[in-house]
Amino acid sequence: MASKQFFKTLRLIPQKYSNDTRGLHSCSYRYVVNSNYQQCTFLTARQSKSKIVSALHPSKAYYGTQPSSSKITRGPYSRLEAVDIAVFTGILGKARVINGAEDDLDGFNVDWLKSVRGNAQIVLKPNTTEEVSQIMQHCHSRNLAVVPQGGNTGLNGGCIAIFDEVVISTSLMNQVINLDELTGVLTCQSGCVLYTLDEHVKERGFVMPLDLGAKESCQIGGNLSTNAGGLRVLRYGSLHATVLGIEAVLADGTILDCMSTMKKDNTGYDLKHLFIGSEGTLGILTKVAIQCPIKPNSINLAFLGLDSYSKVLETYQKARNDLGEILSACEYIDNETMKCAEENMNLKAPISSYPYYMMIETAGSNAVHDEDKLNSFLEDSMKLNLVTDGTVASEPSHMKAIWSTREKLADAMLKDGYFLIFDFSVPLEIFEKFVQDTRAYLGASVKRVTGFGHLGDGNIHLNITMEKFNPDVLAKVEPFVYQWVANHKGSISAEHGIGSKKRHLIHHSKSGESIKIMKQIKKLLDPKNIMNPYKVLPE
Amino acid sequence: MASKQFFKTLRLIPQKYSNDTRGLHSCSYRYVVNSNYQQCTFLTARQSKSKIVSALHPSKAYYGTQPSSSKITRGPYSRLEAVDIAVFTGILGKARVINGAEDDLDGFNVDWLKSVRGNAQIVLKPNTTEEVSQIMQHCHSRNLAVVPQGGNTGLNGGCIAIFDEVVISTSLMNQVINLDELTGVLTCQSGCVLYTLDEHVKERGFVMPLDLGAKESCQIGGNLSTNAGGLRVLRYGSLHATVLGIEAVLADGTILDCMSTMKKDNTGYDLKHLFIGSEGTLGILTKVAIQCPIKPNSINLAFLGLDSYSKVLETYQKARNDLGEILSACEYIDNETMKCAEENMNLKAPISSYPYYMMIETAGSNAVHDEDKLNSFLEDSMKLNLVTDGTVASEPSHMKAIWSTREKLADAMLKDGYFLIFDFSVPLEIFEKFVQDTRAYLGASVKRVTGFGHLGDGNIHLNITMEKFNPDVLAKVEPFVYQWVANHKGSISAEHGIGSKKRHLIHHSKSGESIKIMKQIKKLLDPKNIMNPYKVLPE
Repeated sequence: MASKQFFKTLRLIPQKYSNDTRGLHSCSYRYVVNSNYQQCTFLTARQSKSKIVSALHPSKAYYGTQPSSSKITRGPYSRLEAVDIAVFTGILGKARVINGAEDDLDGFNVDWLKSVRGNAQIVLKPNTTEEVSQIMQHCHSRNLAVVPQGGNTGLNGGCIAIFDEVVISTSLMNQVINLDELTGVLTCQSGCVLYTLDEHVKERGFVMPLDLGAKESCQIGGNLSTNAGGLRVLRYGSLHATVLGIEAVLADGTILDCMSTMKKDNTGYDLKHLFIGSEGTLGILTKVAIQCPIKPNSINLAFLGLDSYSKVLETYQKARNDLGEILSACEYIDNETMKCAEENMNLKAPISSYPYYMMIETAGSNAVHDEDKLNSFLEDSMKLNLVTDGTVASEPSHMKAIWSTREKLADAMLKDGYFLIFDFSVPLEIFEKFVQDTRAYLGASVKRVTGFGHLGDGNIHLNITMEKFNPDVLAKVEPFVYQWVANHKGSISAEHGIGSKKRHLIHHSKSGESIKIMKQIKKLLDPKNIMNPYKVLPE
Repeated sequence: MASKQFFKTLRLIPQKYSNDTRGLHSCSYRYVVNSNYQQCTFLTARQSKSKIVSALHPSKAYYGTQPSSSKITRGPYSRLEAVDIAVFTGILGKARVINGAEDDLDGFNVDWLKSVRGNAQIVLKPNTTEEVSQIMQHCHSRNLAVVPQGGNTGLNGGCIAIFDEVVISTSLMNQVINLDELTGVLTCQSGCVLYTLDEHVKERGFVMPLDLGAKESCQIGGNLSTNAGGLRVLRYGSLHATVLGIEAVLADGTILDCMSTMKKDNTGYDLKHLFIGSEGTLGILTKVAIQCPIKPNSINLAFLGLDSYSKVLETYQKARNDLGEILSACEYIDNETMKCAEENMNLKAPISSYPYYMMIETAGSNAVHDEDKLNSFLEDSMKLNLVTDGTVASEPSHMKAIWSTREKLADAMLKDGYFLIFDFSVPLEIFEKFVQDTRAYLGASVKRVTGFGHLGDGNIHLNITMEKFNPDVLAKVEPFVYQWVANHKGSISAEHGIGSKKRHLIHHSKSGESIKIMKQIKKLLDPKNIMNPYKVLPE
């Protein structure tokens, strides 16, 4: 079992991961690999953030949200041998094969939240699809398990080894292949960083159809693998809507070319969708073709205060009608969340205190028209007594300041002491009832129960804070919230995926028949189960 | 072999199919089932439209676009027996089991184009998912092949029996289950007619995210099965973007519940996408959840004349920039198409003759803003000498008249005598070069080679007309155009699917590895191959 002598400090985690706090979601308790790495037993001993960080050890302990009773047994894979390293070095050269020194491997063995730890002994950095294919051919023939890894910004442990899997990092596969300036179709390698791509296409009059907190580190291949959501889903849809083509390397090294750049292509089963959201368990994405929308000329942001949740819903409906095609984001924050932000981080709403807040963003092609629409909508909403107070920003620095408050809400929660955050989709009309029900259920055993999230997408982040870890509360919370979501046909993971942390919970959102078919498809494409094992699908 | 005594008249085809000419695509030559229906041999003898229609016979002949060398052998399925009819009658009652009289079956055995004919002996009309499941359990245990059929408006023969498959018609599964007026999510049975759904949601402030010529007959389940495109793809994306959930009955009667109504759900592989576009070969869709956009308050339509194809492209790019979020359709018509419409049907462009025409539609939430944007765009385009002439309609009857011209272009082609139309996606910049190359290649052997289509989606309809059928030309055309599309990484079926007509051509758009995986998935979900056999996948 893990003990103090295994702990080490944060210095091994690349600094870039620490700077990016937007979308921070932490909900971890601890499990430990026993000494021969053949089985892990999950403990419920929750670590504070600093403790988690200090608790990291390269080979003995890692952290996740699995329940205390879960066990994982290492699969019957081969162990890395000198001959494998020689083959990989033959394919990639020495500089792109990282093995040996613990410090070199740590950035790949610990996730961004510092909540899980792998024990990978080698990291491979291919440049090309062909190199990935050669690596997979070798791993397949040798029965070596692998983990594809992009920017390592996932929140559910999907890209971190569980035992000693070979890490294949796409970080050097970062070439833009083409941007068709006529159609806005971007083709690139899967290791391109989202921010870099956004800058590249912005210079040419487009934007990436997705935007998320981790954009400075996350890679487009990883985005596709987890079907990353973020701030632009309301406007441009999910990646199932915007991705036109993919290229992937399968478990046996087969290169699967689905790299269409056509918007319309009805020739057989659309296989690319299997790879969007399957978290690297079916193959390694190597190339992507994606439709980029035209860059908006004008952006405005309103921050509103409201008296009741029914008025929040009415205002949302009115915004959809009045702002129509220029509505680009609709966020929701309850008073308790805002109060926490003020108490813990002195972050204030740009208006007085109200029971509920909304952030409504518009993005359009004509500033005069957009402002006109937004002003009419706001005036009407005030006249109708839907919105009690509000402020509008159109100057970039003002908008950034307001967004920054939204982005720091999770940080503020963390300062309460102990923090559970859940990423759920639930029907909009009961979004707030979920918070109330959870609050009533937990009573005085917790400090706060709050809600905020992407109202326009039905995606709520439910937050529970305590002054210190209480295993009894934790044991009470999970069955309640997951069952609540299942009862209302919601999703237990709206945008963060399943990874290693939620695979035992997938039945709350997917039927037994669906899970059975998923397992059959997995077996079909990866009969030896070497592609990112122990992830997504339940045992 | 077919002979004259088998011919019969059009009267058996329901009138509704004849009224709907939008999107008419005909490209048929003939093949014939031999007397024991165990094998069909394809003939190249092309029939004129009237001859095809008059050539219909319930059991001896049918028509498709397969090459003359193709052969289909009937699969090793059981034949319908009295005991099967008794079981089906037990499940559905007598009134919903159609068998026996040829006339009753003909509406289900002949496609909308009258280009293919099946020999189904029975049509089943379930009301509920459970009934579909019971039917499939029986068919599976008895090894009876089935064809799911929606509105029977498909253009590639995907919903017509090839031999004596059991037809399962979803036409009575036409109940709207719910429209969430807050989120715009519609849930309904798969047999709802698109037009009926559009009316239903329009009354409540929404529109269906798809619109196509066949909307008065086609069913939403069929739309999903073929991933129907149409006029709103540019604005709202394909059905992969707008469908949130499906329920399907698999070959063995299993009910697969993927009926999420959540916009965001990242819990495992997103199986619904396998059923979108798989043309009923993996299961029968029984329910659908789809995101409906807000109904636009204002619609405008511009019809423009341009001097060169490069100006068409520049104008398209300018429209995307200037009209941005309100651009809802962008159609392209070349002069030769318009000339044909005028010569054959006295249909005139609403402006003088120009080498190229564009139709640009806007749909938005504010009429004043939309008109302002459109007028600025048009004034600028004229000043820049991109657009030579144009007219704008915003009155519904005027817009309808202009759209009607667009919709009758294929009818006009047909009047040249013999008409081949192809539904391709090709890169936008070579859209017109494709027409020119084909024209140069075919020379004087044909009457016209023209192009029109959904410019905004890269979806071109390439048209070739002849005064009468010429098998030598036909033999020359197909290899040329399919290879041209393949060389330019286009799609041989942009929106009409593969059905029975293009399965031997799928390799032009999909790699061997992709086709192999499609076949494996088919085998996984339908090991006996009883779901819509002889469709989509090559032998």
